[in-house]
Amino acid sequence: MPSLVELITRKRDGGELSSDEIGELISALGEGRLADYQMSAFCMAVFFRGMTAAETVALTHAMLRSGAVIDLGDVSRPKVDKHSTGGVGDKVSICLAPLAAACGLAVPMISGRGLGHTGGTLDKLEAIPGFSVDLDIERFRRIVREVGCCMIGQTSDLAPADKRIYALRDVTGTVESIPLIVASILSKKLAAGIEGLVLDVKVGRGAFMKTTETARELALALVRVGSGAGKRVSALITDMSAPLGLTVGNAIETEEALAVLGGAGPPDLVECTLELAAEMLVVGGLVPEPAAARPLLARAIASGAAAEVAERMIAAQGGDPRVVADPSRLPHAPVRVPVAASSEGVVTGIDALEIGLAAVALGAGRTRADQAVDPRVGIELAVRRGDRVTVGAPLGWLHVASEDAAPRALERVRSAFTLGPGPVPAPPLVLDRVR
Amino acid sequence: MPSLVELITRKRDGGELSSDEIGELISALGEGRLADYQMSAFCMAVFFRGMTAAETVALTHAMLRSGAVIDLGDVSRPKVDKHSTGGVGDKVSICLAPLAAACGLAVPMISGRGLGHTGGTLDKLEAIPGFSVDLDIERFRRIVREVGCCMIGQTSDLAPADKRIYALRDVTGTVESIPLIVASILSKKLAAGIEGLVLDVKVGRGAFMKTTETARELALALVRVGSGAGKRVSALITDMSAPLGLTVGNAIETEEALAVLGGAGPPDLVECTLELAAEMLVVGGLVPEPAAARPLLARAIASGAAAEVAERMIAAQGGDPRVVADPSRLPHAPVRVPVAASSEGVVTGIDALEIGLAAVALGAGRTRADQAVDPRVGIELAVRRGDRVTVGAPLGWLHVASEDAAPRALERVRSAFTLGPGPVPAPPLVLDRVR
Repeated sequence: MPSLVELITRKRDGGELSSDEIGELISALGEGRLADYQMSAFCMAVFFRGMTAAETVALTHAMLRSGAVIDLGDVSRPKVDKHSTGGVGDKVSICLAPLAAACGLAVPMISGRGLGHTGGTLDKLEAIPGFSVDLDIERFRRIVREVGCCMIGQTSDLAPADKRIYALRDVTGTVESIPLIVASILSKKLAAGIEGLVLDVKVGRGAFMKTTETARELALALVRVGSGAGKRVSALITDMSAPLGLTVGNAIETEEALAVLGGAGPPDLVECTLELAAEMLVVGGLVPEPAAARPLLARAIASGAAAEVAERMIAAQGGDPRVVADPSRLPHAPVRVPVAASSEGVVTGIDALEIGLAAVALGAGRTRADQAVDPRVGIELAVRRGDRVTVGAPLGWLHVASEDAAPRALERVRSAFTLGPGPVPAPPLVLDRVR
Repeated sequence: MPSLVELITRKRDGGELSSDEIGELISALGEGRLADYQMSAFCMAVFFRGMTAAETVALTHAMLRSGAVIDLGDVSRPKVDKHSTGGVGDKVSICLAPLAAACGLAVPMISGRGLGHTGGTLDKLEAIPGFSVDLDIERFRRIVREVGCCMIGQTSDLAPADKRIYALRDVTGTVESIPLIVASILSKKLAAGIEGLVLDVKVGRGAFMKTTETARELALALVRVGSGAGKRVSALITDMSAPLGLTVGNAIETEEALAVLGGAGPPDLVECTLELAAEMLVVGGLVPEPAAARPLLARAIASGAAAEVAERMIAAQGGDPRVVADPSRLPHAPVRVPVAASSEGVVTGIDALEIGLAAVALGAGRTRADQAVDPRVGIELAVRRGDRVTVGAPLGWLHVASEDAAPRALERVRSAFTLGPGPVPAPPLVLDRVR
């Protein structure tokens, strides 16, 4: 085995590392033989030189092997998860997991927290009184087995190398590297014991990937590497130029997601949920193609089966299950301030990035990983792209803790809306599909 | 001021950093606001993206400012140093500094130790009984003032940022970056309070730079950045395809270097010393051009003045000055094993890298910075390029601590010699000059 410095140097010079050599780097990191400053230099070399699919598979496996893999061998259903690369207003997991479980899948979901302009599923779930995302693995397994789905945070024993490398990348300018992103996502997801994975690669102003080309590149890499790691993986590339749904915040997003299980909810959120759920049923082998999944999904919602799974999951995770039928039990911001249109026209764009950043500034998100969020605050949209507004009509409402918080956010949210003469063609939600 | 991560990211993306921004990175490193893992990622980004001359000047200044700068204001002579990028058998400093001092320069020399296949001046000097390279700055200044030259190691208060960054680069695959090399060399050298600097950029198998193109690139960068930092700087590019002189080791190299001051020594070593000394006198403003320096240098050797300076410097640094006139006072290896030629022909090449590595294996050098060296051991060459040898004639001798050490080295040293039909044109020693 060459020395660790030789491995860094070979990658720097554009060479390929063997599976064993990548395994050695990750083992050495865990054992203290490779220092953080060496790993960050390696990550920067990967940023410039990339990795082959084989190298990325090896990195994924090595990071996966750095910790425990949850054994879901006693769960007989197909075990399929969904991962989104993150966006503004992306609350899909909260309705998707119970819906997919109601249709016969097991969904063992390891989720994340919000950082920067994108929200996180864990923060949204924690808006439910009593809900805990910090369960031990044994309880996680039991809930997946008995309820069909469970949603927790990454524990310290799952892919610890990913945790450590991600923390390093975050402060060393090495986040934006496709092989590193792929290995990070897949190692974490595979640690939950899944057999299949559906990826929601978001693209646009509010997403990590700003162009369809880079999103497709990431989607292809995820599918190729996930398949290389022996899993059934497919990816949807979905639009994130405007926020998903009509809410951005924690409690208000949870409320909106749960509404989907009651047969309501804004059309784009419903469509995104159904598209991803259908793909999960395909990946899980329950249906041959997405179209065949649609009647199953419609029935699970209409019958109340999906909502019931949500109630059982929430109860099993210590939360108040009555929020599903009665969203007034979720925390609410004391003050609701309208954002009035200052001109008239048709809404041609709603800048997801600006809305996301405004929500963070209100306290709904965080700029540093150690910050707390206020579950009550956020931004509610009154209009969608294509809607006509008149002067003074509400574009949306700020949900704030006090009147003082509103003034700075008002102008920011207002300026996120672009008005024009119209009409506006509705952009497709699903831009591409990679299998 | 942008955040530290933004500075790393800008360099990663090919942007330029301002002088203040580079200063901030180095200050932050010293103050603990920038972690080692961030600096190593930055160094890797610089490896790929390079630095402009202005950025490299800023980095040099920032690293210089990270510690003390020796004040040699009370030394009236021109203060000029020489730096070699390192080679095999490069003992030039030991005869060069006293010779230049005997001609009227002050030579405040901060030297290094050997690492890998290249030797280090400090290790060679320490072969002199009693000689100390660890002097405090006050004593260093006094010896420079009273004797004209002094040679010590880098102290902890001179360019500490360079020390820290160099240690990081060494283990993160970021050594081979011209701006980082330039800033490292110059910040260290400038900390000694010099006004001028002559660089010996070595090129060939035994050097860090393997091609004349990369050596010229480094030389140009050193001269440009050194001039940008307000110093008079020039560089010679010299051949390092074969070892310099006939010895590789510590005591035997010191002996060979001191012989030059007695008017003896192998022609290539003498020539290299005289070329560099002449350039130093030009840089110091004592002569208008190298040719004008030659008579001064010849006189300093012939009169014994240069040897006398060496004796005074050695005595002032605690060493036995009698080694200059009587090299038998240097330590000697107990065993001398001939390396016999196995075929006949003309020596067409002597692989400096192989000879250097063989000397390290005998104990003359180190593969890790914390290893000790044996001053007695090394390799003595019996022939030069162009010499004709017969079967069984000595190519050289191993100087070893015991017979046991010889067998592995014998074949390695023998294979470093290439024999051919001849004749061999003598390669020029000085390949280029950059001012």
